[in-house]
Amino acid sequence: MSRWEPDARGRLERAALELYGERGFEQTTVAEIAARAGLTERTFFRHFADKREVLFAGAGILQDLLVSTLTRTPDSAAPIDAVAAALEAAGALLQERRDYARQRQAVIAANVDLQERELIKLASLASALAGTLRQRGVRDPAASLAAEAGIAVFRIAFELWVSEASQADLPQLIRESFDELKAVTAGK
Amino acid sequence: MSRWEPDARGRLERAALELYGERGFEQTTVAEIAARAGLTERTFFRHFADKREVLFAGAGILQDLLVSTLTRTPDSAAPIDAVAAALEAAGALLQERRDYARQRQAVIAANVDLQERELIKLASLASALAGTLRQRGVRDPAASLAAEAGIAVFRIAFELWVSEASQADLPQLIRESFDELKAVTAGK
Repeated sequence: MSRWEPDARGRLERAALELYGERGFEQTTVAEIAARAGLTERTFFRHFADKREVLFAGAGILQDLLVSTLTRTPDSAAPIDAVAAALEAAGALLQERRDYARQRQAVIAANVDLQERELIKLASLASALAGTLRQRGVRDPAASLAAEAGIAVFRIAFELWVSEASQADLPQLIRESFDELKAVTAGK
Repeated sequence: MSRWEPDARGRLERAALELYGERGFEQTTVAEIAARAGLTERTFFRHFADKREVLFAGAGILQDLLVSTLTRTPDSAAPIDAVAAALEAAGALLQERRDYARQRQAVIAANVDLQERELIKLASLASALAGTLRQRGVRDPAASLAAEAGIAVFRIAFELWVSEASQADLPQLIRESFDELKAVTAGK
């Protein structure tokens, strides 16, 4: 077998998602994922620490994108608008992987431990946003509030997007949800 | 030993909190909690399913208070103001138990599993608030946004309160944080 395994990571990810969807996350083994992808377990462990990490490896990329977009937003932008811009950029990234995102969400919705892990991930993203705002000179509690409210908006827009209740793109749903948050907090 | 054990639940709770603070949550056993409280393990298990539940048994009371306060708020109140009123009522309840709340928070901050459980609890409270708003005729995403933003405000006010960064009462901190959220989302 060749050491060169084109797109091994992507193949493992797709195989894992398929199996989690078919059999459930708990019932799937790393050996089965590797076999489905036509790769070895050893190759799996070169890419992922365990079968849960397949679902959460993207969190680091998402966080880097949020932080870098927020950092590049002009200082003149209000904190909530800078957070919205960062989350729209994250939304555009996810939009390109809509099928993956929806399959992944179905797997997570079926498993309490994965739901807990997802909440931790979102809390980490909120912390990263708040920390970046503070570096831009935004004081607390404004920095924390803008970040936490932003993540709340993101979650709600994301749920709409994956549920197919709307045909809209994720960045558009995020924009609309921020507008809705502004209306809600204005007491409308 | 008498079957009548006055305030057994409160004694167990105080004993558990002391031990978690002294030795850490992981290192404490139910037997030690019961012994410290001068009670039997059997009495412990009449009140709590396990040692983790000692820290989370109050969540149901908090949720009932949130829902009942929200339900009683006049229909004329804007959703965000109705959520604020409910969270201020919860804040008043916690204010009466400030020492307990601070000890509990220190235990949770020291343990990743407990932090995950706490995030789940807050997500459940947000769901309960959103569900109650929907029963009041508030549509989504406004209901979810008001609830999630409210819980974000509550968390931030709670952290300030337990950190002693402020001498203010929790209900006051919650009010101020809602005002701050309104300013932040107005782009200030």
